[in-house]
Amino acid sequence: MNTQDRLPEDRIKLKRVGIRDLKTLIKIKRKGKEYWHTPKISIYIDLSEERKGIHMSRLIECIIEALEEEIKEEHYSLEALGRNILEKVRIKHTYQRGEISFSSELPLIKKTPKSRKSTVEVHDVHVKVIYDGTWKKVLRVEVIGNTLCPHALEVSGKTHIQRAKGRLEIECEFEKDISLEEMIDVVEESFSSRVYTLLKSEDEADVIKSMHENPMFVEDVTRRILERSKKFGCRAKAECISYESIHRHNVYSEGEI
Amino acid sequence: MNTQDRLPEDRIKLKRVGIRDLKTLIKIKRKGKEYWHTPKISIYIDLSEERKGIHMSRLIECIIEALEEEIKEEHYSLEALGRNILEKVRIKHTYQRGEISFSSELPLIKKTPKSRKSTVEVHDVHVKVIYDGTWKKVLRVEVIGNTLCPHALEVSGKTHIQRAKGRLEIECEFEKDISLEEMIDVVEESFSSRVYTLLKSEDEADVIKSMHENPMFVEDVTRRILERSKKFGCRAKAECISYESIHRHNVYSEGEI
Amino acid sequence: MNTQDRLPEDRIKLKRVGIRDLKTLIKIKRKGKEYWHTPKISIYIDLSEERKGIHMSRLIECIIEALEEEIKEEHYSLEALGRNILEKVRIKHTYQRGEISFSSELPLIKKTPKSRKSTVEVHDVHVKVIYDGTWKKVLRVEVIGNTLCPHALEVSGKTHIQRAKGRLEIECEFEKDISLEEMIDVVEESFSSRVYTLLKSEDEADVIKSMHENPMFVEDVTRRILERSKKFGCRAKAECISYESIHRHNVYSEGEI
Amino acid sequence: MNTQDRLPEDRIKLKRVGIRDLKTLIKIKRKGKEYWHTPKISIYIDLSEERKGIHMSRLIECIIEALEEEIKEEHYSLEALGRNILEKVRIKHTYQRGEISFSSELPLIKKTPKSRKSTVEVHDVHVKVIYDGTWKKVLRVEVIGNTLCPHALEVSGKTHIQRAKGRLEIECEFEKDISLEEMIDVVEESFSSRVYTLLKSEDEADVIKSMHENPMFVEDVTRRILERSKKFGCRAKAECISYESIHRHNVYSEGEI
Repeated sequence: MNTQDRLPEDRIKLKRVGIRDLKTLIKIKRKGKEYWHTPKISIYIDLSEERKGIHMSRLIECIIEALEEEIKEEHYSLEALGRNILEKVRIKHTYQRGEISFSSELPLIKKTPKSRKSTVEVHDVHVKVIYDGTWKKVLRVEVIGNTLCPHALEVSGKTHIQRAKGRLEIECEFEKDISLEEMIDVVEESFSSRVYTLLKSEDEADVIKSMHENPMFVEDVTRRILERSKKFGCRAKAECISYESIHRHNVYSEGEI
Repeated sequence: MNTQDRLPEDRIKLKRVGIRDLKTLIKIKRKGKEYWHTPKISIYIDLSEERKGIHMSRLIECIIEALEEEIKEEHYSLEALGRNILEKVRIKHTYQRGEISFSSELPLIKKTPKSRKSTVEVHDVHVKVIYDGTWKKVLRVEVIGNTLCPHALEVSGKTHIQRAKGRLEIECEFEKDISLEEMIDVVEESFSSRVYTLLKSEDEADVIKSMHENPMFVEDVTRRILERSKKFGCRAKAECISYESIHRHNVYSEGEI
Repeated sequence: MNTQDRLPEDRIKLKRVGIRDLKTLIKIKRKGKEYWHTPKISIYIDLSEERKGIHMSRLIECIIEALEEEIKEEHYSLEALGRNILEKVRIKHTYQRGEISFSSELPLIKKTPKSRKSTVEVHDVHVKVIYDGTWKKVLRVEVIGNTLCPHALEVSGKTHIQRAKGRLEIECEFEKDISLEEMIDVVEESFSSRVYTLLKSEDEADVIKSMHENPMFVEDVTRRILERSKKFGCRAKAECISYESIHRHNVYSEGEI
Repeated sequence: MNTQDRLPEDRIKLKRVGIRDLKTLIKIKRKGKEYWHTPKISIYIDLSEERKGIHMSRLIECIIEALEEEIKEEHYSLEALGRNILEKVRIKHTYQRGEISFSSELPLIKKTPKSRKSTVEVHDVHVKVIYDGTWKKVLRVEVIGNTLCPHALEVSGKTHIQRAKGRLEIECEFEKDISLEEMIDVVEESFSSRVYTLLKSEDEADVIKSMHENPMFVEDVTRRILERSKKFGCRAKAECISYESIHRHNVYSEGEI
């Protein structure tokens, strides 16, 4: 009998046991475009109070098998791949609840606001698939923008401005069709201004104008993200952190719908 | 009327609004010993759908006032200080739910196992106080140890060993008397062996002996932490992450009682 | 006259002025294989004591232009792309010394040692190109492995084992033909054992055997990397950091040839 | 014969071998004030091509012994403590070159600019002592401030503002009397404005006014730090990184005198 299959000394059920921060290469084809990810993958299953340990290598085998099929069959999203892996695990290893997550980056091609030049913008994305009888997914994006303080502007005509980061996390049934691109767009639209990697003079002037026309607290950004996320029809959690230019610390806001 | 006190454009309640990662200096006197912390402090209150923003500077004023009293009156724990700050905030700013957390380090003086030399061991600690009608606290410690694989040992007589990190988080009513030191002790006792900053030859031999006598999976470490935490009589969450010596990735286990 | 082109208040020459941690998408074709990177790019030029500032957006334009050509002309390495960018910058912006660096990851397909299964291993890589009259490059790889302590093994027959990270950095003239793959191989061969993402039972036994047959201090790993790097015929710097399983701290070794 | 004292397989001299990121508790008394540090300590010595390894535990013993004397004799600076430790190591272990560094934080009590309230500001500091025949030290401070873009302001009357971080590193003979506080002051004075943890309305208005009166590029901040550091009469290196509010990436400047 394998060491893992014995009775554990302490008979306690565990919720998550598995692999954390495994890096690998994943190629996704989606609507005619190709995306290469080298994500950090975490995969966990639960463990009954009757068994000492899980078989870690089976989790990795399932990841590798799914990726090999990938090359032939072309998965169309990280979610689909994640579900495929969890289904393979269920054949090799009993579990009641399983989850797999991918932390990666999504490069998007955009146009600068005035000069209309091409620019690539890279965003942090996080995709999780959960099975606990039904299939669910959690999608998360983190997007850079900025805040311009409305209070100081009102009081003195001058104000402070800073980089901010917005985060949107959506939890829904697996089949729901929500793209990371749409979610990124919701967050970007919720700042004082969008930001860009390339800015020609006319673009920079446009971004500065936009910031001054849209003074926003972190509270405003968070609420705007939530308001715009209502269209997804799911549970949504939004955060905004602002790296204050007048303080050493950050300001933060968080809410849910 | 202050900008913050106006109606927001999007009428959505927010759960957490405030300051993140403020650093300051805190001196605690506890049972005759003095502890200096330069923690990262985060403090959040909720915000009704009727107000555009909170008054951030009032949160900071309350922190500073509480710390100044500290110098005269001597607080005896980060929890007590946190509650004092949240009580001050309630006078200056309406809220239904408030929380403050301190991320810091706790240096403890220990004896090496055999040579009985003095050594200082520093652990990461996290203390949170929550008010939402009643007062609660969340205490968390992170402790370094190791795992020695029982499966490989059994199969081949030889095995792999690695650094691991254990984490214990306890949530309870504010008045409950639980010390971070006791929690650290629970985690340290749950590894294949404790580790030390100083190890003379005889101590090193003792640690290696202890590791080989206590082969443990991350699952075993997590369950052992939970089993030993039953004495606290509270909701406890335990984690163990093992920085595998035979893999690039980590293995992980998590459970709750 | 542009603000940047004015005389600065303090007439001091600066060595590095530019962009740090810009993320973008880069596709490299090399020996029939395709590699997609989303690296962090930093690009700096020097600035004479006669000018207040550099024109930051020109650096970004050159990156974007080079990447667009890329799509048509297919660059064969990050080094070649970096040189292309720095050459473009020289047309748009005076400088005496310029440098560009890419921090990225390299996924390599390997076979497990015994079961001969395919596995993907991802390594951190760093490529820098410098122009200061002549063209140079600096190549760096970071590779995970392990150390098994020879001293404890000798003294007590038992020992401690832990994850370690090796780093090799090579500085040479631009034209020198050295691949990141060869450098990764040099580091991997220098540990007590290579590590793998996938390990079937027979592979795990092989890795454990290899560790026990090759006890090594961080000093040994560092010297072995340097010894094996002599074949490159360049200035080489090697480091090894070992995440000790018997201590909270790490041990470290560094040398140059 | 100890394993460490044998001949190594590869006869290569190593420049730095030792302990990295050891955490401990240090109490410094300096001009009537007490400072508690829980720094990360790294300590390295060189190793001849004739010996396989150094005796790591002797380095740690020397740190502990020096800290125990500390309690009785009161060291007056991290530099003095570092030199004491390196001198102890020289008795227990041969070396040609040794170095020790402390990464810590320095909390300073300040007054807000207008309301004259007390506020604590915490800065990252780094102290290194080197012995290679003579005694030298390297002092480094990292300070948060901000930049307001002079170019955008000039072109459009409006501009962008962001958090920035300045760094000053000074290398000099050990006996030179330079305080970290003076160095922090030099960096803080070189931004568009100083920043504060507490800001009452009148203070915030003052900081915003100061930013708008002192538009600065990262190049300006770097040069200003260097210009002000001339008074120290040593080799100085300055850096400024600006977390742009209109871009996802950062801008950077670096120079030396």
